[in-house]
Amino acid sequence: MQLTGNLLIGRHSFHGINGSIDAVDAATGERITPPFGGASLVDLDRACALAWQAFDLYRDTALAARANFLETIAQNILDIGDELIERCMTESGLPRARLEGERSRTVGQLRLFAGVVRVGDFLGARLDPAQPDRKPLPRVDLRLRQIGVGPVAVFGASNFPLAFSVAGGDTASALAAGCPVIVKAHSAHPGTSELVGRAVQKAVNDCAMPEGTFSLLFDSGREIGQALVTDRRIKAVGFTGSRSGGTALMNLAAARAEPIPVYAEMSSINPVLLFPNALKSRAADLGRAFVGSLVLGAGQFCTNPGLVIAVEGPELDAFVAAASTALRQTPAQTMLTPAIGTAYASAVAKTAGHPKVTMAARGLEARAVNEGQSALFVTDADSFRDHPELQEEIFGAAALIVRCRGIDAMRELIESLEGQLTAALHIDEADYADAKALLPALERRTGRILVNGFGTGVEVGHAMVHGGPFPSTADGRSTSVGSLAISRFLRPVCYQDVPAPLLPDALKNDNPLGLNRRIDGDLRMAK
Amino acid sequence: MQLTGNLLIGRHSFHGINGSIDAVDAATGERITPPFGGASLVDLDRACALAWQAFDLYRDTALAARANFLETIAQNILDIGDELIERCMTESGLPRARLEGERSRTVGQLRLFAGVVRVGDFLGARLDPAQPDRKPLPRVDLRLRQIGVGPVAVFGASNFPLAFSVAGGDTASALAAGCPVIVKAHSAHPGTSELVGRAVQKAVNDCAMPEGTFSLLFDSGREIGQALVTDRRIKAVGFTGSRSGGTALMNLAAARAEPIPVYAEMSSINPVLLFPNALKSRAADLGRAFVGSLVLGAGQFCTNPGLVIAVEGPELDAFVAAASTALRQTPAQTMLTPAIGTAYASAVAKTAGHPKVTMAARGLEARAVNEGQSALFVTDADSFRDHPELQEEIFGAAALIVRCRGIDAMRELIESLEGQLTAALHIDEADYADAKALLPALERRTGRILVNGFGTGVEVGHAMVHGGPFPSTADGRSTSVGSLAISRFLRPVCYQDVPAPLLPDALKNDNPLGLNRRIDGDLRMAK
Repeated sequence: MQLTGNLLIGRHSFHGINGSIDAVDAATGERITPPFGGASLVDLDRACALAWQAFDLYRDTALAARANFLETIAQNILDIGDELIERCMTESGLPRARLEGERSRTVGQLRLFAGVVRVGDFLGARLDPAQPDRKPLPRVDLRLRQIGVGPVAVFGASNFPLAFSVAGGDTASALAAGCPVIVKAHSAHPGTSELVGRAVQKAVNDCAMPEGTFSLLFDSGREIGQALVTDRRIKAVGFTGSRSGGTALMNLAAARAEPIPVYAEMSSINPVLLFPNALKSRAADLGRAFVGSLVLGAGQFCTNPGLVIAVEGPELDAFVAAASTALRQTPAQTMLTPAIGTAYASAVAKTAGHPKVTMAARGLEARAVNEGQSALFVTDADSFRDHPELQEEIFGAAALIVRCRGIDAMRELIESLEGQLTAALHIDEADYADAKALLPALERRTGRILVNGFGTGVEVGHAMVHGGPFPSTADGRSTSVGSLAISRFLRPVCYQDVPAPLLPDALKNDNPLGLNRRIDGDLRMAK
Repeated sequence: MQLTGNLLIGRHSFHGINGSIDAVDAATGERITPPFGGASLVDLDRACALAWQAFDLYRDTALAARANFLETIAQNILDIGDELIERCMTESGLPRARLEGERSRTVGQLRLFAGVVRVGDFLGARLDPAQPDRKPLPRVDLRLRQIGVGPVAVFGASNFPLAFSVAGGDTASALAAGCPVIVKAHSAHPGTSELVGRAVQKAVNDCAMPEGTFSLLFDSGREIGQALVTDRRIKAVGFTGSRSGGTALMNLAAARAEPIPVYAEMSSINPVLLFPNALKSRAADLGRAFVGSLVLGAGQFCTNPGLVIAVEGPELDAFVAAASTALRQTPAQTMLTPAIGTAYASAVAKTAGHPKVTMAARGLEARAVNEGQSALFVTDADSFRDHPELQEEIFGAAALIVRCRGIDAMRELIESLEGQLTAALHIDEADYADAKALLPALERRTGRILVNGFGTGVEVGHAMVHGGPFPSTADGRSTSVGSLAISRFLRPVCYQDVPAPLLPDALKNDNPLGLNRRIDGDLRMAK
């Protein structure tokens, strides 16, 4: 497919004239063609108008048709072939195997939501039948279903150019919920975005979905992204990125005449808790495994383990020694963008210069531009508590080990942490009692608690939570990975005494959609 | 029970010394004893500290114990006896039958949530079992449950001194979800609040719940309410009241270091749509029924029908004539507080003086202080669209009828409306096609669509939605009435590879709680 650098607005494709975005080879820093034309406010208005027109039609599509649409997007992405992987490697600096895996995940997410749409449980159908003879007052007939909130703005993530970008998790869950989507492409991978955007646009056409179901915009600055979030026709926002970017969108959304929900996945240092018996039995193994997780994808995962908490002593020393040895052998890796590489180097230098922090080890030095050199630091619990800046996420392969005087100090430290996506506990059976005592504090501030593993590698399923209290996300009531994500783009509507011909199929007496429904509160299986 | 005017903080009861709140007889405007002592910031801090300490313990209570606690609150409220009704009549000006009904509803809500807690579906338990042999990578074991968000601040409503106040819907759903509650009493009914607060406090003691599960604060100004919403230990807010009050709380919550959800139920004019055939067959009946709903509770319901939309012509004239005749015979009614009475009179005078509005009728004149005289106004669709101030809620028994040139003008007018709690359609079979064409626009902006009835009278069940897009509420993804309200105070937590001894009961393999659970996405009934 020949890249055009065009905006995709409804069924149209044309070159934006509001500035230009150049794709950059992450490994060399060189510009690559073609240039991508930035959207104007007129283009944005057109995309929003189309999405708004599409909303009533698209949310009314049959479940099977909507599921088929999601599967068609998945197939169209696969049909792009190796061109997608190669372009994405160039733009992101990520290796082939990682991106092939990410493509599988992207396709898998779309298919997962197709399955969710077919089953229809997300409609949350509830019927409280009328009781005309109830005393003292007759009871009306009440029926409830969930509908899409409206057109959704999705901001592509730099670190998942496929799985959290144009046709990634937010787009898949919003489309599944019945919401048209307008994507603001991440400028780190515009070519990848165009390729995937065309696959979605083609699926809209292949499946005869309403024109405004999908649009893709490029933005040479911040004007279009901000205007998108404040447009009255946009009813929710999905975002994955920095804390500053996410909170800026939250503030914009809260200041609207009609405030709307923002689902921003932002900032998490993902504490790793090493318990005494686990450390005693396998400190060196843990140190090596930890470094394996730390440097994965150049440390550019939301779930990257940036903080280790453990009780001081010879076992922790052994962990630090093993981790340091492993780290010193890890090659520097190409980072997603030159800007991310620069920010990483600067954050590492700042931590290295912190008076309360000791450098334990650094990875191999960079041999090319825009490579990130991994780093491991050590501090103590008092210093960590007294210096909140040490809790700030460093986006990249850098972590801080905090030595505590005992389990109580570990608990206190946990209580000082901000909201997190994940917390990992390394425990042996002899640690269970200590671990159990810390679980409530972890539940209060994390979305996912995992044992004897690391948070990197997010399984896409039904029981996954990729979310957590602020600032890990804007809204801890939700997840951005897994089938539960569909609920973030839904809201309930109740129908009272509505005659059968006017009821949506989901709520008709004879249950034509074959849904599991709640009758007077009791769950009734369709079959 | 002797009223003390005391704050209830955990198990303690003492007189606040930060200013004083006087109860007022709504019918006479006279102060009644005792004075209620305002909470200080120290008192607030104590209540928040207790709630925070209680949270981990309370959310870990067995489902049966928590359900029993809710039922004990209900019984303790009934045990107060007629003293509660009499005090509430004096403070609110509402008649006995209404308040007896509201007490039944309050008790019913608590019992409904007790049932919801016992069944346990709200835990949303999901299990994706490990697949150690999956290729290319083994699958981890993932389990998900919903937990309470944390301590909840509840602001009592003026217009439901029982059902949306100290032990009302927000308190019941938050306690059901596992969240301790701190109530800021509404100053319009402090005595009612103390009586109910003592019933809750006694239930905490009777059921051996953690001390901080419940506290009740009085506030002589706004300081304590604001400090409550901004306290770091408060994780969600429930509010029913004015648009200005609700948006002020939304802004405070959004500006916190950790923003939190606010569920504010604020402002709705609840459009009533009269369709041509229904008008033709029963204009006069509709006019009389409409006035019956309009003047219910002196018009002080969130679902009060403040707007009528219909096609102009002799049938609409007949409706206006019948409604006017009925309205002219309705006595003025005591309003909830002198301030509400004054605000109502002022808003009615403003509308009466509007150059584009005609007065159709007024109810009987007030014969005592603080009585509200009902009012019915008429305008046309163009004027309504050009004067957004006509869309502002008048809290009381006043409504505006908008004459439209045809069904298309009705649709355009609907598209200009802000978010609403309810929309009522009056239709005959011959109107079904026209009504169906308007449903999508109504679904997009209302929480409940009802046919051939009025929104007043909110059934508490499983399929009810009392919510809607902004400004009817702060968050249209939720409901404040009915069993679905429990979900607003929950957030998901995922457990990955967590050993059985550390798993919560809801997620153990042998399903000791007997829950309906989702296994690999498939719903499995416990029995």
